[in-house]
Amino acid sequence: MDHKRPVYFISDRTGITAETLGHTLLTQFDDSEFKQMTLPFINSTDKARTTVEYVNHAAKTSGLRPIIFSTTVSDEIRAVLRTADALFLDLFDTFIGPIEQELHVRSSHTVGRAHGVADAGSYKARMEAMNYALHHDDGQTVKDYDRAEVIIVAPSRCGKTPTCIYMAMQHGVFAANYPLTEDDLEKARLPAALLWHQAKLYGLTSEAERLNQVRNERRPGSKYASLHQVGFELRQAEQLYARNNIPFVNSANMSIEEIATLIMLEKKIERRHF
Amino acid sequence: MDHKRPVYFISDRTGITAETLGHTLLTQFDDSEFKQMTLPFINSTDKARTTVEYVNHAAKTSGLRPIIFSTTVSDEIRAVLRTADALFLDLFDTFIGPIEQELHVRSSHTVGRAHGVADAGSYKARMEAMNYALHHDDGQTVKDYDRAEVIIVAPSRCGKTPTCIYMAMQHGVFAANYPLTEDDLEKARLPAALLWHQAKLYGLTSEAERLNQVRNERRPGSKYASLHQVGFELRQAEQLYARNNIPFVNSANMSIEEIATLIMLEKKIERRHF
Repeated sequence: MDHKRPVYFISDRTGITAETLGHTLLTQFDDSEFKQMTLPFINSTDKARTTVEYVNHAAKTSGLRPIIFSTTVSDEIRAVLRTADALFLDLFDTFIGPIEQELHVRSSHTVGRAHGVADAGSYKARMEAMNYALHHDDGQTVKDYDRAEVIIVAPSRCGKTPTCIYMAMQHGVFAANYPLTEDDLEKARLPAALLWHQAKLYGLTSEAERLNQVRNERRPGSKYASLHQVGFELRQAEQLYARNNIPFVNSANMSIEEIATLIMLEKKIERRHF
Repeated sequence: MDHKRPVYFISDRTGITAETLGHTLLTQFDDSEFKQMTLPFINSTDKARTTVEYVNHAAKTSGLRPIIFSTTVSDEIRAVLRTADALFLDLFDTFIGPIEQELHVRSSHTVGRAHGVADAGSYKARMEAMNYALHHDDGQTVKDYDRAEVIIVAPSRCGKTPTCIYMAMQHGVFAANYPLTEDDLEKARLPAALLWHQAKLYGLTSEAERLNQVRNERRPGSKYASLHQVGFELRQAEQLYARNNIPFVNSANMSIEEIATLIMLEKKIERRHF
């Protein structure tokens, strides 16, 4: 007998919204007590019926009443899902009513408008931003910096690459990044390629212990990874940021999402949505 | 006077959950009628008070009552936000109660457990998956295919790269991708590098018009982009998939999220959460 409570994220499409909703709520409880599963593309009453059987079976074998987080647009499908022996929490059930009242209109009840191909234009914008981030990763090229909305600078392994790719993927931001090399750091001088783009720069720094650990995974026991070296690089980078009025943040205890959100907020970069 | 209704996504952290929640709901109405803005890091009653003033000002200037989607853990901050002249919809307000009742426990009321650095281990797993996707993009290297959970194959520009990076970033999936070249397609033979990994393969195809358009943006007027060439490549790719029992999907009208969700579902790849 599995003593974890089954939790299902059910959607007629990708399940991303149901997951996001459910996870944010479950982080307020003890995560380890839940057995979580996403059931995407539940887009017919037949599939909904199978889902109900599945959930009811889990309820029996676990001996614990499941929790369902649902974002299913169709009233019919939702009506079937609601018959499961589970706590049923649905986004549309809960919030569409108050919004309809406020707007004095009925909602469209259209499936798949979130996380779908909204229009070719926004798909293209997102792809262009992703290609930009991939081609302007780690100082590969400094061409087209005019298009950049932000250029992240930092010593190796402070989080430049994932932050740029996340911003491109999630928000369509044109984000480049440029590594500060040992040479740049020794001279504590901004690399020449960046001089004309100072207003776009944002710096990352970290904690020596953390960077030492991350670099050791890449090149164990190297000078590159040594506490002495990372300590030096981080001090020099922070001085370089301060001297050149480059805003910066210590990313050691932040998630990619948090770093990206902070940079976009401080640089006043628009959040686009896909 | 701006005749769009102001909509705010307010959070004590990144605002990602509030945005996801709000967007999914607003797609059921006419998006063009809203002016949307995310206000992240509203993590003190002082900031909440400033936010209320800001929202009330927007209510006056627009002449339309704003909508607030909020995910603020602190009861005090939420109490302040609720005083705004707006329709106030809060995730915790709405759902924490029913879950607490079901579980017979109180929630922790801890800020920042979603989209934060949960633990060093999961951060590391995500970084490794991202590095894997970046290094195994477009057949750059076929080393370490043993680690791959999926290897996406397709003709150029069908969506291999963004799908792999999305799966890595969002779910920590080890995803490689390999391009089918004209040569592979002419022979309608699986590239040698893939023969040992057939069970991991997943194919993408597209529609000729769409691929023609996408490739024309990259190399306008080229043979590579021509309708004749893309038609040939797509036909051959589909034959190659069918002949080798490679599951595949037509990605022409799908978002990256949908492609990734479908592949993970069909390949039974676990969805990890960060």
